[in-house]
Amino acid sequence: MIKEISTRKSTRKYNSTPVEDEKIIQLIESARLAPSGSNTQPWNFIIVRSEDTKAKIAEINNNQKWMKGAPVFVVCVADIRCRIKENRDIYLDENTGLPELKQIIRDTAIAVEHILLETESIGLAGCWTAWFSQDSIRPIMNIPDDKYVVGVITIGYSDASGNGNPTSRRSLESMLRYEKW
Amino acid sequence: MIKEISTRKSTRKYNSTPVEDEKIIQLIESARLAPSGSNTQPWNFIIVRSEDTKAKIAEINNNQKWMKGAPVFVVCVADIRCRIKENRDIYLDENTGLPELKQIIRDTAIAVEHILLETESIGLAGCWTAWFSQDSIRPIMNIPDDKYVVGVITIGYSDASGNGNPTSRRSLESMLRYEKW
Repeated sequence: MIKEISTRKSTRKYNSTPVEDEKIIQLIESARLAPSGSNTQPWNFIIVRSEDTKAKIAEINNNQKWMKGAPVFVVCVADIRCRIKENRDIYLDENTGLPELKQIIRDTAIAVEHILLETESIGLAGCWTAWFSQDSIRPIMNIPDDKYVVGVITIGYSDASGNGNPTSRRSLESMLRYEKW
Repeated sequence: MIKEISTRKSTRKYNSTPVEDEKIIQLIESARLAPSGSNTQPWNFIIVRSEDTKAKIAEINNNQKWMKGAPVFVVCVADIRCRIKENRDIYLDENTGLPELKQIIRDTAIAVEHILLETESIGLAGCWTAWFSQDSIRPIMNIPDDKYVVGVITIGYSDASGNGNPTSRRSLESMLRYEKW
């Protein structure tokens, strides 16, 4: 088993050690190498260190105050323009039914999970968050209407005292079938 | 960098070596450990070795004949019932606008990418495919209308002679922003 798959854990308490710029670059590089449908690579990443912006994002993210303890947020943005080439207005939110939105969410999630696994590889820790609406996060970051924020990842060094046991999982048998549903 | 992130490559040519059952279990175990929103774990996996079923899936998957050379397919199915608890009829397809469908696609994609990375770790190779419609794949596998097939992963041992160079990627600078879009 890849070590990072078995040891990764969503981490919500960080110590105050700053995160080096070059480590952030390495995380994005791990995402860059991800596969995507027709190699469309819909992902974009906004690195946020501003305390003010982090506070605003935490607030509209179901007011998850623990987030503010993370020194870096990575805002992960999928761009549908890699799939819809005509120059027409597109507005994306949680209720959009466009097939292409499903494709770019899938592909961006793949790349973002590379980031989460890579944090574990270089001694960092992180957590996926997505408890916000597109309408609430877009103005904070100046994100256009035709992009979709798939998640905000908190990044930092884990505070070993504050992170509990691994989360429980369904049994392997419950998720495994053979030949047919 | 996690070795498997940098060396993984979508593989479309396989040799005839069969894939051991215990390696398939290890792949599913790597998916089982994935994170998901509110720990909903929407993923399910159908292991397909039947030549007849593989041929049918390849046919409705844009008739990608290379797929039939893979000894195993993993059909990756997201279940929306982890998020919608009321007992009402739900029909999911590419045009469905439900917010919960976006969430289960995201979470299942995360788990499926664990499988792809883990193939590389244990000497296997694989490829994401998703060039089918829900309506075309569902009857082949007896998959209910309230499930969504996020992808079909081909699994096998790579035929070294038949797989080319790594696919090109956007530059890191093109996908990286600071503080704002």
